[in-house]
Amino acid sequence: MQFSFPIRVYYEDTDAGGIVYYANYLKFYERCRTEWLRALGIEQDQLLLDGIGFVVTNIEVSNLSPARFNDLLSVQCDVKQLKKASILFTQQIIDEQGKLINKATVKVACVNLRQMKPIGIPAHIIEVLK
Amino acid sequence: MQFSFPIRVYYEDTDAGGIVYYANYLKFYERCRTEWLRALGIEQDQLLLDGIGFVVTNIEVSNLSPARFNDLLSVQCDVKQLKKASILFTQQIIDEQGKLINKATVKVACVNLRQMKPIGIPAHIIEVLK
Amino acid sequence: MQFSFPIRVYYEDTDAGGIVYYANYLKFYERCRTEWLRALGIEQDQLLLDGIGFVVTNIEVSNLSPARFNDLLSVQCDVKQLKKASILFTQQIIDEQGKLINKATVKVACVNLRQMKPIGIPAHIIEVLK
Amino acid sequence: MQFSFPIRVYYEDTDAGGIVYYANYLKFYERCRTEWLRALGIEQDQLLLDGIGFVVTNIEVSNLSPARFNDLLSVQCDVKQLKKASILFTQQIIDEQGKLINKATVKVACVNLRQMKPIGIPAHIIEVLK
Repeated sequence: MQFSFPIRVYYEDTDAGGIVYYANYLKFYERCRTEWLRALGIEQDQLLLDGIGFVVTNIEVSNLSPARFNDLLSVQCDVKQLKKASILFTQQIIDEQGKLINKATVKVACVNLRQMKPIGIPAHIIEVLK
Repeated sequence: MQFSFPIRVYYEDTDAGGIVYYANYLKFYERCRTEWLRALGIEQDQLLLDGIGFVVTNIEVSNLSPARFNDLLSVQCDVKQLKKASILFTQQIIDEQGKLINKATVKVACVNLRQMKPIGIPAHIIEVLK
Repeated sequence: MQFSFPIRVYYEDTDAGGIVYYANYLKFYERCRTEWLRALGIEQDQLLLDGIGFVVTNIEVSNLSPARFNDLLSVQCDVKQLKKASILFTQQIIDEQGKLINKATVKVACVNLRQMKPIGIPAHIIEVLK
Repeated sequence: MQFSFPIRVYYEDTDAGGIVYYANYLKFYERCRTEWLRALGIEQDQLLLDGIGFVVTNIEVSNLSPARFNDLLSVQCDVKQLKKASILFTQQIIDEQGKLINKATVKVACVNLRQMKPIGIPAHIIEVLK
């Protein structure tokens, strides 16, 4: 995949079943997308000040193998499709032994957070993403 | 839907975009499934002591409309398909005005947590679910 | 104590040590303070729209006994001291057997969230709290 | 302070007030303590397999200045007192401008997680910590 970001599993990420709690993979995926944008020079705090945010509208997640406390995961993302007002990502998580832990397809829409309406992705971001 | 459970949105559930953080809907869905089992007389702490847990293997989520701080949500679940070792749920979240906030299909597998292997759902639970 | 609110422990609240993750008690305490205000007729979403929030400035927590998955906790709060711009709470968490799980002292300041400056608690709230 | 660890603030860490949610600083502090132990060669997953964990028994937190989405924080820890069965830490969080965001005193006890009883810190860890 295009971009990968290391994430360590801490106690906060696990549950009493001894494994990473399933909702927390969505946090890991967003950290990865944020760092991917940062690596491209796009800082989202400026977007937020302008009232613009990327909001996840659809997710498909397959939880393939459990990750555990203290595992060092490689969280990855790739742009599958870039549209005017949304981005479709494929993402996956791999452990240190190369085992596939989790994979997902994530659709993210660009949104005016004040009116909560979809808007076109700002031109300077489209430029970079192309 | 078969079962619904009220969940209040607290500060902890929201993010700086002013809306419920997308991963937190998965927490709401699991609270609802847990309460549905409890309403059927099945307490999962006993299962956990026996090393048995329900682990989400697949999720499809559509995030349709933002929920906000202090909203009172109705989180719902319905069994779409009951198999020997897994349950397929349809779930949705509706706000006080009846607006559809989020919907999901969630596949949950019964797992031996010590060996992390799929096992058949215990007979007394199958009995109740039928 | 003056007010108590029931909170169920779900998988999301626990960690791989098999007990409630320590930071999550702070979430439980805030849910309780929010419900206490609601019981007094004060809804914080209107405050938030006005750019006013209660921000925790100091906490002292004693974690006395572990709570576990599926426990039904009674989370309680009491006003120890009411000042012009802050409230000092004593809070505690008790399990179904009456065992003291956790206790805390929490200082909450009223804040203008746009300027991030302390402000006086709105008069209609002071009125109710007295 | 003795050890510092960089932590980026993501959307998941913030709330609708636009700032880091107060309970999440406790997560940041634990990540720092975990990385400090790792830097000393102590991996806690082996401890967990042996049924040993470090459990926070007391915390005092002062929340001095708000951190926001996308801030890069330096989370720090120092051992104030090392006892046979517990460690007292002082911890603090500083932003990129050197501003003190949060400070805390955290008492961590070594615990047999199966019996939930305090035990002496394992000798090889005491050795390293001295």
